[in-house]
Amino acid sequence: MTERLYIYDTTLRDGQQTQGVQFSTPEKHRIAAMLDELGVDYIEGGWPGANPTDSDFFNEAPKTRARFTAFGMTKRAGRSAENDDVLAEVMNAGTKHVCLVGKTHDFHVETALGIGLEENVENIRASIAYVVAQGREALFDAEHFFDGYKANPAYALTCLKAAHDAGARWGVLCDTNGGTLPHEVYQITKAVIDAGIAGDRIGIHTHNDTENAVACSLAAIDAGARQVQGTLNGLGERCGNANLTTLIPTLLLKEPYASQFETGVSLETLARLTTVSRKLDDILNRVPMRQAAYVGASAFAHKAGLHASAILKDPSTYEHIVPESVGNARIIPMSNQAGQSNLRKRLEDAGIKVKKDDPALGLILDQIKAREAEGYTYDSAQASFELLARRALGQMPEFFEVKRYRVSIERRKNKYNQTVSLSEAVVVLKVDGEKRLSVSESMDETGSDRGPVNALAKALAKDLGRYGEVIADMRLVDFKVRITQGGTEAVTRVIIDSEDAEGRRWSTVGVSANIVDASFDALLDAINWKLLQST
Amino acid sequence: MTERLYIYDTTLRDGQQTQGVQFSTPEKHRIAAMLDELGVDYIEGGWPGANPTDSDFFNEAPKTRARFTAFGMTKRAGRSAENDDVLAEVMNAGTKHVCLVGKTHDFHVETALGIGLEENVENIRASIAYVVAQGREALFDAEHFFDGYKANPAYALTCLKAAHDAGARWGVLCDTNGGTLPHEVYQITKAVIDAGIAGDRIGIHTHNDTENAVACSLAAIDAGARQVQGTLNGLGERCGNANLTTLIPTLLLKEPYASQFETGVSLETLARLTTVSRKLDDILNRVPMRQAAYVGASAFAHKAGLHASAILKDPSTYEHIVPESVGNARIIPMSNQAGQSNLRKRLEDAGIKVKKDDPALGLILDQIKAREAEGYTYDSAQASFELLARRALGQMPEFFEVKRYRVSIERRKNKYNQTVSLSEAVVVLKVDGEKRLSVSESMDETGSDRGPVNALAKALAKDLGRYGEVIADMRLVDFKVRITQGGTEAVTRVIIDSEDAEGRRWSTVGVSANIVDASFDALLDAINWKLLQST
Repeated sequence: MTERLYIYDTTLRDGQQTQGVQFSTPEKHRIAAMLDELGVDYIEGGWPGANPTDSDFFNEAPKTRARFTAFGMTKRAGRSAENDDVLAEVMNAGTKHVCLVGKTHDFHVETALGIGLEENVENIRASIAYVVAQGREALFDAEHFFDGYKANPAYALTCLKAAHDAGARWGVLCDTNGGTLPHEVYQITKAVIDAGIAGDRIGIHTHNDTENAVACSLAAIDAGARQVQGTLNGLGERCGNANLTTLIPTLLLKEPYASQFETGVSLETLARLTTVSRKLDDILNRVPMRQAAYVGASAFAHKAGLHASAILKDPSTYEHIVPESVGNARIIPMSNQAGQSNLRKRLEDAGIKVKKDDPALGLILDQIKAREAEGYTYDSAQASFELLARRALGQMPEFFEVKRYRVSIERRKNKYNQTVSLSEAVVVLKVDGEKRLSVSESMDETGSDRGPVNALAKALAKDLGRYGEVIADMRLVDFKVRITQGGTEAVTRVIIDSEDAEGRRWSTVGVSANIVDASFDALLDAINWKLLQST
Repeated sequence: MTERLYIYDTTLRDGQQTQGVQFSTPEKHRIAAMLDELGVDYIEGGWPGANPTDSDFFNEAPKTRARFTAFGMTKRAGRSAENDDVLAEVMNAGTKHVCLVGKTHDFHVETALGIGLEENVENIRASIAYVVAQGREALFDAEHFFDGYKANPAYALTCLKAAHDAGARWGVLCDTNGGTLPHEVYQITKAVIDAGIAGDRIGIHTHNDTENAVACSLAAIDAGARQVQGTLNGLGERCGNANLTTLIPTLLLKEPYASQFETGVSLETLARLTTVSRKLDDILNRVPMRQAAYVGASAFAHKAGLHASAILKDPSTYEHIVPESVGNARIIPMSNQAGQSNLRKRLEDAGIKVKKDDPALGLILDQIKAREAEGYTYDSAQASFELLARRALGQMPEFFEVKRYRVSIERRKNKYNQTVSLSEAVVVLKVDGEKRLSVSESMDETGSDRGPVNALAKALAKDLGRYGEVIADMRLVDFKVRITQGGTEAVTRVIIDSEDAEGRRWSTVGVSANIVDASFDALLDAINWKLLQST
């Protein structure tokens, strides 16, 4: 018999405490829909009344299969729950589920709230009783529970008991400051359960300040907690909350959890996890973390030569789960440690079939080695790698030829003594046997100078004949430059990430002592790769 | 009585398996020096013979206080340890400490190696015995130990015992695929120690595929392991290795570890941890992870209103450690209370004394805030920060004025159909009231094009009048470019590292949508800072 384990998502509330994150109301709707599709059990939408975005969001609350929950705090001292205006706004949101945070650490009651210990217990009791009396499901977030338990176990338990006795469905043990280690979380959660206050109606809410938020969550579940709180991609105050993007696959795929529990997320929706994670980054305009567990672009990338060759014999040799189970994919990057078998696999993944003993394999490897010695890197520049391979295999059409280009950059003071700068690029191409001259400058619609690479890109794209339409939806999204060693001299390596309207994203590399020249080469590769997709 | 716990760093070996990371030999030297200053006990430098970079690095091995270690693998079947050329290259590196990886999982012996189980045990024994016979300290990395133990505990233990019986100082239990959970690591490590093979001469090496690498390391230490392996910033294959940047402060600051253990890192060097972490990102041109435990820019940022107001009453209300203990700092958005004292400290460090209530402090903070909104960063660009502060304080002489510049970049085919490129820069300056025009091109002595920034730097330096001599020994040593957000638009941020003959090294920053313009500004700051040192 499996037991029910509840997954409680607080991306829309605690996740919003991430430095630099500020959701808009429409973004909250998109994220709630994603979470609901994934199958989490609770979605905490925010704190009605705390800010205009949250209030707007609850005014047009999404219809979810998941239990949609409003967050707030227990009533303040010196007034009844019915007369607390902060609590009133939370209740007025009308959600069936309400989670209230309250203090359980004596030091905080006295220092931060400045009220008596008994008074705080009464605030918890009265607030939860009020929520329950209104016909809602009540959850109690026991703030600083672990620090509180270490300082004064009897008081921490008294607070938790007050909430449960008042009818709380869940008492959630929060490690608010994130400093508690997994073995302590296990011991304290076990002590709470052994105290018999609330059976297994205990939840866990951890933070990642010692990089142990996931481990602490698992430790609490091991001790008997049956609700786990966290956020997508580990968003949250300071170092973030427990990362549900990691916890969910661990609970669904790994023992003893996989056999022991059932949650709202199924193996079928789990296969969308990588997409969900990337979409959230997309909404927030954050660069996805390559090294993220399960869903990162590097999570199943095998760079070490010994690993890569064993993977080809049997993927389970160096993979703890099947990448597809979380919607991710295996990558065998090229680097100077890789060999022929590695290369064939990578070519196959790119849709390029090469026979086992094809001499082109040796040729490609030699070219990669030579280029890497010049400062190129093909680890991340997958699109440039594909172009190199196709050229070596004679499978690369020449869409156009660059005859020459010239860029000039100027900075001077204008007659108002303001510093102004401008770049101008001239590109001479041959397309379908016809010579074409294009010129562009770096000024954008607002009159700002966007620089020489921008001018070059525009001049290049301006007159590509019949290819112009194909590349019209291309967009440069990232541009990374570093000085590296090319033979005996320092050279500049440029990596350009491009995107198109179909959601493709590809990386290309250029190397030269001249930064504009290196950028130009990476741009050319980016355009050629895009053209290749349309042939 | 405290026990000795050994910290083993593998940033330079396993860290190099990070997708997109490729250290150069000089970078390896810089990182080794940083690690040695921090005080780790072992520095694994790489695999001599595996690639040219590692071979070069061991040929000029750094002199470290830490045990400098070469990595390799146990001898292959069908030859003696003395006649294995791969092992020979490792031994020829001449390090006093040698770590060899070998298989301990029966499935891998048979599938990946394709040899008999007995033969593999003999390979381990003979290899370790050979290392010991050569007078070196031997470490044995037991690859896939946890998976191996789960499948065939007797065989895994036999392999480990063979290494210890042959004289290995350490047997390191590796969770190579990163899929083992903390409770399993505890149980299996405990079983190994209870088996009495090697006392506590057991190490732990984990990966972050379930975000549990730190917790698994702690679990193994709880069970009795006394060496812990990891990397700075959690670099490493796939999702990375156990993050030493997190483990070190946890072991030094948190109980029971702080009272129980002594390591090579002291509380004094711990205070440099944030700097070490940022420097590594800087070398790799990676964006530092804001949410990183202990050292992230957000690790002590208190965004929630309730948290921030409590923090002002008593920081321990929402902080699990004192930020300064790891060289980090508290951030309270909306309050530059903390900002001003931080700023004074940083100015003092730069030799600029400002009184406590000087209104210039507020002015400098405002300017930094405004510039950061434009895309500047003063975290690493210390020299530009000093110039900004001195300008605000009226302590900055105007050495010269730039009237205008122009750069042209050209690429074309010459009469031999070779692609050639060239840049030319014209700079107009006013020095000591006198107008000076200089022109330079980007060709170096060997006839190679060094690019527009080089041409500009040469033109700038060419005719600085009486300052020419002062900057003659300046050299641009690194150049990093990143696209970042400046207000509502993407801009280019350039950071230039310069060096002079006296061994000074300084960093300056420039921001513009135009990469050449941003570089020019960073160059100007670099020259001005250098001139300031000589006044």
